[in-house]
Amino acid sequence: MAPTTPRPVITVDVWKKPWEQEKPLHNRWHPEIPHVAQVVEGEVFRVETVDFSGGAIKDNDSAEDIKFCDASIAHYLSGPIRIIDPSGAPARPGDLLAVEILDLGALAGNEWGFTASFDRENGGSFLTDHFPNATKAIWYFEGIFAYSPHIPGVRFPGLIHPGLIGTAPSKELLDIWNAREASLVNGSVQPPTLCDILHQRPLANLPTPKGSLLGLVEKGTANWERIADEAARTIPGRENGGNCDIKNLSKGSKVYLPVFIEGANLSMGDMHFSQGDGEISFCGAIEMSGFLVLKCEIIRDGMAKYLTPMGPTLLHVNPIFEIGPVEPRFSEWLVFEGISVDESGRQHYLDSSVAFKRAVLNAIDYLFKFGYSKEQSYLLLSCCPCEARLSSIVDPPNAVVTLAIPTAIFDQDIRPQKHGPSAGPRVMRKPDVLKCSYDGSLPVTKNLASV
Amino acid sequence: MAPTTPRPVITVDVWKKPWEQEKPLHNRWHPEIPHVAQVVEGEVFRVETVDFSGGAIKDNDSAEDIKFCDASIAHYLSGPIRIIDPSGAPARPGDLLAVEILDLGALAGNEWGFTASFDRENGGSFLTDHFPNATKAIWYFEGIFAYSPHIPGVRFPGLIHPGLIGTAPSKELLDIWNAREASLVNGSVQPPTLCDILHQRPLANLPTPKGSLLGLVEKGTANWERIADEAARTIPGRENGGNCDIKNLSKGSKVYLPVFIEGANLSMGDMHFSQGDGEISFCGAIEMSGFLVLKCEIIRDGMAKYLTPMGPTLLHVNPIFEIGPVEPRFSEWLVFEGISVDESGRQHYLDSSVAFKRAVLNAIDYLFKFGYSKEQSYLLLSCCPCEARLSSIVDPPNAVVTLAIPTAIFDQDIRPQKHGPSAGPRVMRKPDVLKCSYDGSLPVTKNLASV
Amino acid sequence: MAPTTPRPVITVDVWKKPWEQEKPLHNRWHPEIPHVAQVVEGEVFRVETVDFSGGAIKDNDSAEDIKFCDASIAHYLSGPIRIIDPSGAPARPGDLLAVEILDLGALAGNEWGFTASFDRENGGSFLTDHFPNATKAIWYFEGIFAYSPHIPGVRFPGLIHPGLIGTAPSKELLDIWNAREASLVNGSVQPPTLCDILHQRPLANLPTPKGSLLGLVEKGTANWERIADEAARTIPGRENGGNCDIKNLSKGSKVYLPVFIEGANLSMGDMHFSQGDGEISFCGAIEMSGFLVLKCEIIRDGMAKYLTPMGPTLLHVNPIFEIGPVEPRFSEWLVFEGISVDESGRQHYLDSSVAFKRAVLNAIDYLFKFGYSKEQSYLLLSCCPCEARLSSIVDPPNAVVTLAIPTAIFDQDIRPQKHGPSAGPRVMRKPDVLKCSYDGSLPVTKNLASV
Amino acid sequence: MAPTTPRPVITVDVWKKPWEQEKPLHNRWHPEIPHVAQVVEGEVFRVETVDFSGGAIKDNDSAEDIKFCDASIAHYLSGPIRIIDPSGAPARPGDLLAVEILDLGALAGNEWGFTASFDRENGGSFLTDHFPNATKAIWYFEGIFAYSPHIPGVRFPGLIHPGLIGTAPSKELLDIWNAREASLVNGSVQPPTLCDILHQRPLANLPTPKGSLLGLVEKGTANWERIADEAARTIPGRENGGNCDIKNLSKGSKVYLPVFIEGANLSMGDMHFSQGDGEISFCGAIEMSGFLVLKCEIIRDGMAKYLTPMGPTLLHVNPIFEIGPVEPRFSEWLVFEGISVDESGRQHYLDSSVAFKRAVLNAIDYLFKFGYSKEQSYLLLSCCPCEARLSSIVDPPNAVVTLAIPTAIFDQDIRPQKHGPSAGPRVMRKPDVLKCSYDGSLPVTKNLASV
Repeated sequence: MAPTTPRPVITVDVWKKPWEQEKPLHNRWHPEIPHVAQVVEGEVFRVETVDFSGGAIKDNDSAEDIKFCDASIAHYLSGPIRIIDPSGAPARPGDLLAVEILDLGALAGNEWGFTASFDRENGGSFLTDHFPNATKAIWYFEGIFAYSPHIPGVRFPGLIHPGLIGTAPSKELLDIWNAREASLVNGSVQPPTLCDILHQRPLANLPTPKGSLLGLVEKGTANWERIADEAARTIPGRENGGNCDIKNLSKGSKVYLPVFIEGANLSMGDMHFSQGDGEISFCGAIEMSGFLVLKCEIIRDGMAKYLTPMGPTLLHVNPIFEIGPVEPRFSEWLVFEGISVDESGRQHYLDSSVAFKRAVLNAIDYLFKFGYSKEQSYLLLSCCPCEARLSSIVDPPNAVVTLAIPTAIFDQDIRPQKHGPSAGPRVMRKPDVLKCSYDGSLPVTKNLASV
Repeated sequence: MAPTTPRPVITVDVWKKPWEQEKPLHNRWHPEIPHVAQVVEGEVFRVETVDFSGGAIKDNDSAEDIKFCDASIAHYLSGPIRIIDPSGAPARPGDLLAVEILDLGALAGNEWGFTASFDRENGGSFLTDHFPNATKAIWYFEGIFAYSPHIPGVRFPGLIHPGLIGTAPSKELLDIWNAREASLVNGSVQPPTLCDILHQRPLANLPTPKGSLLGLVEKGTANWERIADEAARTIPGRENGGNCDIKNLSKGSKVYLPVFIEGANLSMGDMHFSQGDGEISFCGAIEMSGFLVLKCEIIRDGMAKYLTPMGPTLLHVNPIFEIGPVEPRFSEWLVFEGISVDESGRQHYLDSSVAFKRAVLNAIDYLFKFGYSKEQSYLLLSCCPCEARLSSIVDPPNAVVTLAIPTAIFDQDIRPQKHGPSAGPRVMRKPDVLKCSYDGSLPVTKNLASV
Repeated sequence: MAPTTPRPVITVDVWKKPWEQEKPLHNRWHPEIPHVAQVVEGEVFRVETVDFSGGAIKDNDSAEDIKFCDASIAHYLSGPIRIIDPSGAPARPGDLLAVEILDLGALAGNEWGFTASFDRENGGSFLTDHFPNATKAIWYFEGIFAYSPHIPGVRFPGLIHPGLIGTAPSKELLDIWNAREASLVNGSVQPPTLCDILHQRPLANLPTPKGSLLGLVEKGTANWERIADEAARTIPGRENGGNCDIKNLSKGSKVYLPVFIEGANLSMGDMHFSQGDGEISFCGAIEMSGFLVLKCEIIRDGMAKYLTPMGPTLLHVNPIFEIGPVEPRFSEWLVFEGISVDESGRQHYLDSSVAFKRAVLNAIDYLFKFGYSKEQSYLLLSCCPCEARLSSIVDPPNAVVTLAIPTAIFDQDIRPQKHGPSAGPRVMRKPDVLKCSYDGSLPVTKNLASV
Repeated sequence: MAPTTPRPVITVDVWKKPWEQEKPLHNRWHPEIPHVAQVVEGEVFRVETVDFSGGAIKDNDSAEDIKFCDASIAHYLSGPIRIIDPSGAPARPGDLLAVEILDLGALAGNEWGFTASFDRENGGSFLTDHFPNATKAIWYFEGIFAYSPHIPGVRFPGLIHPGLIGTAPSKELLDIWNAREASLVNGSVQPPTLCDILHQRPLANLPTPKGSLLGLVEKGTANWERIADEAARTIPGRENGGNCDIKNLSKGSKVYLPVFIEGANLSMGDMHFSQGDGEISFCGAIEMSGFLVLKCEIIRDGMAKYLTPMGPTLLHVNPIFEIGPVEPRFSEWLVFEGISVDESGRQHYLDSSVAFKRAVLNAIDYLFKFGYSKEQSYLLLSCCPCEARLSSIVDPPNAVVTLAIPTAIFDQDIRPQKHGPSAGPRVMRKPDVLKCSYDGSLPVTKNLASV
């Protein structure tokens, strides 16, 4: 074998439950979750991951699994992996860990994924007030391409990436996280804006033993209970990287992660075949199991060399990323704009979330004219390679945010024409509800087969 | 002459004041500002514009002109231009006006621009709490490239665009604007977040006769007074397009603008040689005078065909844009991330503005290690072709926003290295305050000539 | 004015004859043609050029001007320009002259160009055996785009470049050129292949006073006669650069030209709005007048530092080029292949010219099925941004050459489909002879107005 | 399993000999080689291939295996695969077979490849007169990247493709091939140019039983002998596709292959991790074993719909290719030029092979100044993603060919600088002979380990 044949350090069996995997998975951040593998700086190694739900979401036409999905299980991660240098010395707090993503993809035999939105009662999504019901679309992978039987007429190459990659926090950092996120829930800091409250989404996801999987920590012990009580949820991105959902962190990219504990304890999961900027439908990329081929480098004292902490602690930093030369590029884009006036006509002050919401709604309404139901477009814009840009953030009172969609992903010309989308003899796709939406009262809705 | 030689419909003389131009300029939105020119659908025509300040900001090493700049003069626009079809029928309310940007550039003899941040007392900018003083950098254009004597070591091709392009509002739409923006100032809608208040920036810029220039409306008449009292300021982007500051709206792009009054009354200005997403320093692109070569198409009833109004009025829509195949592309990017925890360590709820602020601060601190003063980086990130993306907007409590910088614009390798930016014999640029910053008490600070 | 306002060093008046221009033009290479202007290293300057024919080819529907065009007039160049460093020392033999192309474009009022093929009796073109008659298509420029009334259904952005840019040869180098090109004509070296002979094209274009324009050399003198007898024609590219016809030498590019005489004596012309690799129809780009904005740098002794002469003389070198980050890029291409078996079925040995010929013929036949006449496609493939690649040159007996066409330049989908280009209700464009082709016996052929 | 899980139709074991594989391989083109597998239109399937040599070239530091490689074994192919439609009807002569390349890559455990040049006595390469000895470089794959211990300082992403893919010829087409290639060897058609003769390379590779592997044809039978006598070698590309060596035929591409016999009988092999245009060193890509994931579509009567035969037979056509949106793109290129004057100073007539040779030699000499031995550069330019363009083919007597190299593949800045590559304190790599070159008399030469 070539010296660059990746050493498989973590493998998974997607037919087994997360807690049955040979190298135990975890779904919480805590410094005391023991590493399950060790790699040497410079070594080429392979890590496999289950999808974020650990197989709870199935390849079928019903959104029932999404509707009743227990969010406390997110995200099942592979790791932690301890990183050492060739002399055997581990990565140390204060180092930077450069992780190069050499390759990644779907697991053989499991070439599919799903995009979904959670029910309003169950965590919701960015547009919960418009899309209160659970919806789900299945995507099948034909090599680098994905298509969906639930969203016909689109096909695009994936920009595969790990939605979640990070190092373990130190106890000190973990305490900071827990305190500051609790401050939101207990109201000791500024309340979220009215716009967000309307979304009726959780303010934060605080530690809870419910749903916890803690790797090699022995279940049933007091230690397990203590760690489960303390361990941070993996939902948000934080100082350690984590659930960044950066759609361009694909083949040839590099992540520079701060190291907070000895060995770094690198974990990853939540792989995406493709994601749109924002990941608006929450479970919003094309979620999949998969593999990564990686190589690590330790930059000793790299945090002092390259990062600058802010605030009352030296730990408040963020990772850096490097995007390489191999990213797919589209040459033509249709761009939708939103300003910070919400859909009721109310003015907000430089609120880019409101502006983005408007841009997304504008795009959804536009695509409706080309035969896509609103549910279809909501899921599509969440997972296709569209770009969400903060175009202007400084012109009171309106933030301007744009959403750019590559036109080549459609099998029809979606650009505005002199005579409109309804002109001419072309048979339009009938707008239709998503095959697999689920509203809690009706059976699975009308099939799209006639489309 | 070829049939495609652009017909010059509006020319400017940059050595004259805005109110001295042959075709009078305007800096307010109002349906009764008469058109100064007329073009026929399909015709190739040329429009010249002064810079947003009408020449108030000078090519020199002092930021004093920015410090005392009167914001009520922004933005001096060329137009309105009435659009008719070949039969002579004007664009009508409900139509879409497709404006194709065939070419654009600097005016001959005026190949320079400026990037600046306003003083905190004078409107401020995105990071006013960090950069309270007025600063200014001059850029010189070498054909498609720009360089600055105030920010050495960078040079990049421009992605020239009009920061501002739009149609005139109807009286009904204007009234909506004025009412909704006043609601912010008079507190009748949700207050801005604490984070924004700290910025000490204006909540909105309401109509004011002060600084008004109203084109062909006769000055000194009651009519002028009435219109000046009603006319909307041009600072924010709105339903008519306006100050969108979309950095990719360059050569080969198309804007689909809603038409609200007969003739459409197209205006434009605030040209940028280059801008970063967000335009963070407010006066934050490379601001310049310039020319545009345009062609219009009227899509009759296009608003009904392609746009979907939201809210209590049929007027609440946004333009659509089409980006063409000729945009410059960079292959390698360094990406900074921010989460919605502010620099004091406080948690905010899915606030993408806070996350973006952190990403920008992270980038500024990083570039400091490579020899750039913080003021230099602030202006640079405001005007270079960097991309600000809403990476994740759905994972409570942290929004994740990324700022991607093309590495090729620097004359040094700014990527993290094993041995750090300070290792080796390389002579570092001395961090230094911006040559032209102005803090109101000191003379112009230390020169960068030795860099 | 900004320090980067280009200094106009050579201007032209396209309504005057080449010999009437204020700064006299030239159309031959000779060290004794005096410079007409001087620029300093680092200075930003502007040069205007007439089209290669000096206005002989007109904007009309007849190919008669091409049919009787005197090839001995090609190419009317602007220059020579003497280059000095800031101390006043000129560029010297052995230096490299780095010429950065900062900007370039069409002349105001002259936004059009032409693509043509010469008559077989008059120099011919790459496919003279298939296209023996003179043909001509006019292109109009809409800013960055070009369209042709003679080739409907295509529109594309230009990749504007000087077809010809070079330094003056020394007398020694000139003698080498004349001797080696004469050796072809007088048969003292290997004869061209049968394939080429069939083309019935000139073997070389040796010096001739006929048609010569020699700049400041005084006409009617013995000196003029001597120089005209010696001066090299500008048709082929040579060691000094010259007529390289490199389609990507556009905005932001750099040319590193060897310097053979004191001052370098830089000349340029033959500007192209766009060209396909190969420039197959000979007069085959979109030929135009235009301007260039340039900046020069002298790399002292650069020939020794960077170039390696071959053969019996130190002068036998070639320029180097640098392509910058702003080139338009297309994301989808249709690729035609040719092998070195000619269209009669005869085998040739690794002959990439034959293989390229076949690829071009395959593309022409393919486009015929989409409604383009063969003449239209011949001219189109000569001037649109298609890429001709030497894919395989080592597999006896077949060279493989590919011709890649960006699909986005067409207003129809030209990709192969399951049901073929003729299926369905779509009205095909009628294949038609080129509106402006001219065969010497017939009047201008059928108009395309009905297309 | 998802419906898009590729069905493995041909697997190989790289530790076995080509003739020991479960589905027998073949290395000749003949209509009577039986298919070894069958796939249905629309099915996603997987094919594995050995490297072209079937494992004869080893991962080591000696070029001895290349020096004595038996060229008659090239190329071991997987297939033929019979293609049928869902009704069971096979592809028929006259159809087009659209083969979409959904994915492809190296085989797990075999992540390495080699680039080599053959000895002059053994087939040679494009520059045999300059590089008469066998040389070899090993490349290791780190996911999408390759690096070589024999060519330090470069690393680049692969543009993986099958060097060879094609359908089986009919007997009629096979007879045409054999007759026309024999005509070169027996001198009945035009002799190759002097330039080529100097290369001392074979004029053609005619059928020979030596080295033949014929799949399911039973060895030792008269049938085997007859087929081996008739079957075409796979060295050159031909009407059926075959050894096209088109470097951009990578993920997301489509090949439209003519069908000559019932079932199409698709074969493929000679996989390349990366190749430069031209594949100059003959064994010149990064040669590897690998897998392809494919999907086929039958376009009934597609040859008549889309192809146009030339010459005396309806069979003389070439495939068409479609390049998709996911190709890696580099933004900066250094370009070398060659004209059709050979390195002895002799003039050739519009000979693009000579011009290309000069461009390659210029690039090799240039890179020598940056520390690369000529052997290293020869192999590097053969396999890295450089582009060889026919820039001008119409300006007698000089063809102009350019070779563009992406600068990002080097770990040093290879662009010309004011002060030259030798200026400053930078330690140059010592030019050195290739570690693994083999000249037949010396032991393996000096190691590069000190570099």
